[in-house]
Amino acid sequence: MTVEFWFLIGAALVFWMQAGFAMVETGFTRAKNAGNIVMKNLMDFCIGTVVFSLLGYTLMMGEDTLFGLIGLPNMDMFANFKAFIASPEDGSFTGASTFVFNLVFCATTATIVSGAMAGRTKFSSYCIYSGIISLFVYPIEAHWIWGGGWLSQLGFHDYAGSCAIHMVGGIAALVGAIFVGPRLGKYERDENGKIIKVNAIPGHSITLGALGVFILWLGWYGFNGAAATSVSELSSIFMTTTIAPSVATVTTMIYTWIRNGKPDVSMCLNASLAGLVAVTAGTDAFDAVGAAAVGLVSGFLVVWVVEFIDLKLHIDDPVGAVGVHMANGVWGTIAVGLFANPDAPAGLEGLFYTGSFTQLGYQAVGFVTVAAYAALMMVIVFGIIKKTHGLRAAPEDEIMGLDISEHGLPSAYPDFMPAVHKYTTYEEYSDVTVVTGDTPEAEAVTVQKLPSFVEEGRPKLTKVEIICKEAKFDRLKKAMSKLGITGMTVSHVMGFGTQKGKPEYYRGVPVETNLMPKVQVDIVLAKVPVRSVIETAKKALYTGHIGDGKIFVYDVENVVKVRTGEEGFDALQDSEE
Amino acid sequence: MTVEFWFLIGAALVFWMQAGFAMVETGFTRAKNAGNIVMKNLMDFCIGTVVFSLLGYTLMMGEDTLFGLIGLPNMDMFANFKAFIASPEDGSFTGASTFVFNLVFCATTATIVSGAMAGRTKFSSYCIYSGIISLFVYPIEAHWIWGGGWLSQLGFHDYAGSCAIHMVGGIAALVGAIFVGPRLGKYERDENGKIIKVNAIPGHSITLGALGVFILWLGWYGFNGAAATSVSELSSIFMTTTIAPSVATVTTMIYTWIRNGKPDVSMCLNASLAGLVAVTAGTDAFDAVGAAAVGLVSGFLVVWVVEFIDLKLHIDDPVGAVGVHMANGVWGTIAVGLFANPDAPAGLEGLFYTGSFTQLGYQAVGFVTVAAYAALMMVIVFGIIKKTHGLRAAPEDEIMGLDISEHGLPSAYPDFMPAVHKYTTYEEYSDVTVVTGDTPEAEAVTVQKLPSFVEEGRPKLTKVEIICKEAKFDRLKKAMSKLGITGMTVSHVMGFGTQKGKPEYYRGVPVETNLMPKVQVDIVLAKVPVRSVIETAKKALYTGHIGDGKIFVYDVENVVKVRTGEEGFDALQDSEE
Amino acid sequence: MTVEFWFLIGAALVFWMQAGFAMVETGFTRAKNAGNIVMKNLMDFCIGTVVFSLLGYTLMMGEDTLFGLIGLPNMDMFANFKAFIASPEDGSFTGASTFVFNLVFCATTATIVSGAMAGRTKFSSYCIYSGIISLFVYPIEAHWIWGGGWLSQLGFHDYAGSCAIHMVGGIAALVGAIFVGPRLGKYERDENGKIIKVNAIPGHSITLGALGVFILWLGWYGFNGAAATSVSELSSIFMTTTIAPSVATVTTMIYTWIRNGKPDVSMCLNASLAGLVAVTAGTDAFDAVGAAAVGLVSGFLVVWVVEFIDLKLHIDDPVGAVGVHMANGVWGTIAVGLFANPDAPAGLEGLFYTGSFTQLGYQAVGFVTVAAYAALMMVIVFGIIKKTHGLRAAPEDEIMGLDISEHGLPSAYPDFMPAVHKYTTYEEYSDVTVVTGDTPEAEAVTVQKLPSFVEEGRPKLTKVEIICKEAKFDRLKKAMSKLGITGMTVSHVMGFGTQKGKPEYYRGVPVETNLMPKVQVDIVLAKVPVRSVIETAKKALYTGHIGDGKIFVYDVENVVKVRTGEEGFDALQDSEE
Repeated sequence: MTVEFWFLIGAALVFWMQAGFAMVETGFTRAKNAGNIVMKNLMDFCIGTVVFSLLGYTLMMGEDTLFGLIGLPNMDMFANFKAFIASPEDGSFTGASTFVFNLVFCATTATIVSGAMAGRTKFSSYCIYSGIISLFVYPIEAHWIWGGGWLSQLGFHDYAGSCAIHMVGGIAALVGAIFVGPRLGKYERDENGKIIKVNAIPGHSITLGALGVFILWLGWYGFNGAAATSVSELSSIFMTTTIAPSVATVTTMIYTWIRNGKPDVSMCLNASLAGLVAVTAGTDAFDAVGAAAVGLVSGFLVVWVVEFIDLKLHIDDPVGAVGVHMANGVWGTIAVGLFANPDAPAGLEGLFYTGSFTQLGYQAVGFVTVAAYAALMMVIVFGIIKKTHGLRAAPEDEIMGLDISEHGLPSAYPDFMPAVHKYTTYEEYSDVTVVTGDTPEAEAVTVQKLPSFVEEGRPKLTKVEIICKEAKFDRLKKAMSKLGITGMTVSHVMGFGTQKGKPEYYRGVPVETNLMPKVQVDIVLAKVPVRSVIETAKKALYTGHIGDGKIFVYDVENVVKVRTGEEGFDALQDSEE
Repeated sequence: MTVEFWFLIGAALVFWMQAGFAMVETGFTRAKNAGNIVMKNLMDFCIGTVVFSLLGYTLMMGEDTLFGLIGLPNMDMFANFKAFIASPEDGSFTGASTFVFNLVFCATTATIVSGAMAGRTKFSSYCIYSGIISLFVYPIEAHWIWGGGWLSQLGFHDYAGSCAIHMVGGIAALVGAIFVGPRLGKYERDENGKIIKVNAIPGHSITLGALGVFILWLGWYGFNGAAATSVSELSSIFMTTTIAPSVATVTTMIYTWIRNGKPDVSMCLNASLAGLVAVTAGTDAFDAVGAAAVGLVSGFLVVWVVEFIDLKLHIDDPVGAVGVHMANGVWGTIAVGLFANPDAPAGLEGLFYTGSFTQLGYQAVGFVTVAAYAALMMVIVFGIIKKTHGLRAAPEDEIMGLDISEHGLPSAYPDFMPAVHKYTTYEEYSDVTVVTGDTPEAEAVTVQKLPSFVEEGRPKLTKVEIICKEAKFDRLKKAMSKLGITGMTVSHVMGFGTQKGKPEYYRGVPVETNLMPKVQVDIVLAKVPVRSVIETAKKALYTGHIGDGKIFVYDVENVVKVRTGEEGFDALQDSEE
Repeated sequence: MTVEFWFLIGAALVFWMQAGFAMVETGFTRAKNAGNIVMKNLMDFCIGTVVFSLLGYTLMMGEDTLFGLIGLPNMDMFANFKAFIASPEDGSFTGASTFVFNLVFCATTATIVSGAMAGRTKFSSYCIYSGIISLFVYPIEAHWIWGGGWLSQLGFHDYAGSCAIHMVGGIAALVGAIFVGPRLGKYERDENGKIIKVNAIPGHSITLGALGVFILWLGWYGFNGAAATSVSELSSIFMTTTIAPSVATVTTMIYTWIRNGKPDVSMCLNASLAGLVAVTAGTDAFDAVGAAAVGLVSGFLVVWVVEFIDLKLHIDDPVGAVGVHMANGVWGTIAVGLFANPDAPAGLEGLFYTGSFTQLGYQAVGFVTVAAYAALMMVIVFGIIKKTHGLRAAPEDEIMGLDISEHGLPSAYPDFMPAVHKYTTYEEYSDVTVVTGDTPEAEAVTVQKLPSFVEEGRPKLTKVEIICKEAKFDRLKKAMSKLGITGMTVSHVMGFGTQKGKPEYYRGVPVETNLMPKVQVDIVLAKVPVRSVIETAKKALYTGHIGDGKIFVYDVENVVKVRTGEEGFDALQDSEE
């Protein structure tokens, strides 16, 4: 009886990992998508529960059929409840325990993907994906590995899911990230479409990201340990589950320190997860040395793969899900064949301890077939969604943020003033018209041409103050650069005015929107004609909708550059910040 | 022995729910009250521990007396410690285990209220309430249900507290919210006092709110499961505790999506809690189908009740405590009579499974009497507090935020620039004088009348820059509206100056306050006379205290409206933002 | 078997305390160091795991040798894995269980220090310290107390580590804080170096700090309870672990309320931890009354010691680690000798229950020797690090924040606009040159002297707008004060411009830095000559590097002071904010 209590406590710890994923994925992405991300994480579990109970659970754990390919679906959970909660005579766990246990693992698989597709995926499409992976994609391969299917019959060993969960989740993340494409502004292209620059889009709360990692690590003691039935096994699992991520994290710290000159915080947080992922398959098969070796490799692997995916393949995976889960899921699966110590509870024969290639062969067969299956299924799933329902949010929704566009949540953090973005928006999208408040395009009025007002010949100092939408700031900045203007001061302000449109709701109450976030750009001019700046700004900002902004012009008496002491005209003659 | 270890682990998980309530309630309310909310949550537990150990525990669990109404108080915990920690011969749990277990449940009841009264309740009054509910209000009804009192003798079933805890906490929340009244700015009234507008006051961190929900859900496996003594019972409980909130959340997602056009994040988070609350009474009595049905109803119920309370009854419950805990507490209690499956561990006979109304009758008697008792007690408790000590913070304290006014904490987030409020402050309170720094009113100086400076007839463009207290911004905005000014730019700045007053303390060290948060409002004028704007602003802002603000006037050379290309006077002739 | 499962669950709860420390320490310090703090907490555990497995574990738990001073190191964990995970015949726990259990306690000791040294310690130095304390400093004294060493043979009782962990961690924190010195701006000195003012530096997220306290409290049920082997013992431990912090928190609330006029949030959060620390040594030895008495003293002690350390000793301990862990660690250790009830599970004879001084004597010997040992070791460790590698970050790194200087993380919260600091920077460091982007000093250009432009005799109103680095704001403010200018408006803006320098990396991708955070200071002048302000500002801001800032001068038409109605020159003739 003891062991089944622990089994359920462990399942609760695995449920807790949903909170960890929510915090990691939110913390490592933009504030404007925070509500969307937590919603996806919540829905992975809730939708997952519904579909896994309807079909997934029995596909996975039902009587093995079709030569080890699937479990035979049944309705025992609903139709035969008394038996479902009774302890079987063979001493195995109740159906209800087994259901809850497998459900929380299933939901983990699903939720790995949300981080990789963060910030630009339609919420409805994500819900469809999430339902499908829990309905049958995960259950079928999990049947192979844990439900009595062909891989478990073969001798393949994946104790807690490096392959079944993390590699599969990571592959789904990779396919999803490819199909949905990179976030706007992530990669800059030249005129031929060649990517010439990769931008970093930093996460909005490293603290919450770190909390998420600690939550996941705690949850992992349940993830790896819940199925243990003896003290020897559980204590061994706790030890390897501690050593591998620790060694991985120290490795990444030292490696990024040496290579970049400074130890990278967010990469070290990823490394902890990488070590945990990798040790999962053989957590009962490694000894202390093996766990350390697995972690050591993970510490390098996560850095290489995260950077390779981003810098070479140009696949935008905001939280590093592919580097953490897919790469280390594969590595952990293989590592069982290399580092399994026959003295460990699993009693497997790893190559480096016994010289035998047998287990390594099983592991290779297992991860290759499961990876092929997962990749195929996810290409089909994401392909169909993309073709039919569409996978990606509209560019204007993405620029505004998915919180407001997908959920009508004006901000997840309305009491804090947002900072001006530090990164450049993808040029080809800067023509996108973002209209808050849904004014129909038809209402737009064309620009009325007024005679230019006369520039006085002298280098008069003038301040031009432009109030505009943040989404247009990058375009404005680039247009000003072309005019030769490189010094400007930017801040967030709230523009108050009347703006008709579709109201947003917060808990059923319409949210008043007569204070709209705007960017104020101050430029002080001497050489460049004021009229050129005004006309250029108008062109850059014009969409024809209410809220395009205003430009104010002021006289400036003097300017002093502190570093050189230059004044007036001279103080403005270079491009220093 | 095993089971009592789990009993205590479960109690620790219920303790953990305090963190969940703290995060949910903080996240769903304003940043300026964040310290106050966490303090209330902390004190619910700490004050609760003191009073529950002194009296509440034995009132609840002491020998049944007075015909099942109360337990007989005793001092065994203090006077007879050896017996208190010894395992009774009948195999039941030690007194110490029972004490800790019941204490954490008691503290949960108390803490439900803090969210509903957030943002305007005097901290001292809240402490009094919190002490009283844990001293005897909760213990007496909990004795009826769990301590061997009359309801448990009758056959009323409330396994883990839909009625005893959540309904009672929710009723206390409702009574408290009514007695303390709505937050300033929540409801706008016309001249006859009729409410003409309901404003949304969004929470300051959806992310922390979501974390709180995950914490609560994790804790709920202990809340519902801790008292389980068999594997069959526990596994069944874990399953129903998973299914009901999942179904509730999916239901709310779909329902808000269809009705509002977008799936509502914060309502879905509430729905998870609603499903958990509702399944609690019959977590051991429902089967999988029953749990799903309970959750399905919860998913609608939480939306309806939250909106009904706010939009129809105009009771301000910032976190939805009444909709989540009271409504679903009642629903869950009744649902036992409807959906109890005789095959489930509790073995009860629900109407829909057996056609018997008996259990439903017990449930109805139970929730009605407990609700009546709770409502009566809380009306008395809050009524007396309101009459004697006062329940509500002063309007100026509420406007500044309870962190600084009640705890001397200048900000829970001092490193972040606050955003300008998006909602309107209650008109009748906009005359409230908010004086940071406690300058006595007597020092105020009357306005010195200066001759107006002459307006030049032409539509000269002028910028008026007003630096004032944020608390006055809404009044200023309205006054400007009446003048016909609708376009303005607003930002937060820090005003530096000398300001004498009572210092605030942070950890015993006085906090320097010569940088005060101010709002800067920029208005560019063409038609409206500058003098009118100045005099109107002076009237709107004047309190006679230091810090009333300054008004600066600048010349503007030109204004361009981007959308139309209009310049100068024309660019300012409408009310667009 | 049951008990060893709980032992490991308890160990997982102690691991979870790392998250609690991370949140408390981050929340109670500045946002600009948030990434650095979580990194230190992560590394305490990860580096600790590596060194504790290599040597620390066996130094602590190996066969007692050298007359009870150390355990004999061995390599069983690596060389004899089968035995290490096998259950010993004497019924004791497996080596692996014991290793994990002791490791998580060891990491707790290490991590107490990071908060006390927050905000100004070199990360590399911290890693060295962290490795050393886990390698042998902690293991040796822990061997004395728990590994069969001389103190355990003597009869010294420290059940879960008030002395072994918290007092030792607190002493390390004290020594570290002394050696590294206070944060810039914490203490202001007069010309003779005498401290004339203590500044409060508020934490950046009270909410995360509170979450951390709840996490720690939850973890503490594992910390205090994991080693319990009977229900009687465990239930007694859960009860004392609940009562002591509750009473401590209520005590601090009432005490700060009476003394300061308002209940202090952050001090109450500290008080919960203080009560937990103090009850730890005798958690199995106190009864309910004893636990309450221990908590009552803790509630006062934490306030006194935190304030004494800061206000009298002028040691800068940002999170109160010394007051919480050292002071209450000592108090808890002594309290065993006073309040141990022979009826409690430990069966010890406390002075107040038996009149016997024996146990009190053991406790005194224990804490004095362990404190002396810890102090000596930490003085040597921090002394050597300080002399050789250096302990403190460069002042410019500290001012910018350790996130960017130590980790290349531009901000842990890049989507939020930072607030302008409310506190004064240490005068003697305001000459420090902070160069973002590493422009070599050699490139600096000397100030070019231009003829002053002529001041017109009349009190013309002029606005001077200064855009500068935040690090220079305090210096500017003071210089302006000396000129007689006391009113100014300050806000954060982003300065856009070209700035060459060493790029920062976020996950391997260079972070673009052409938008730099700047402070904008607006001063409106009537009496003070504009030229004086410009020259003074230039002197205050000049470093000779790119990015020193610019000064803009505008004409002002009028100024109105709202409180008095004064206009023009008169409106600016005092120092009000």
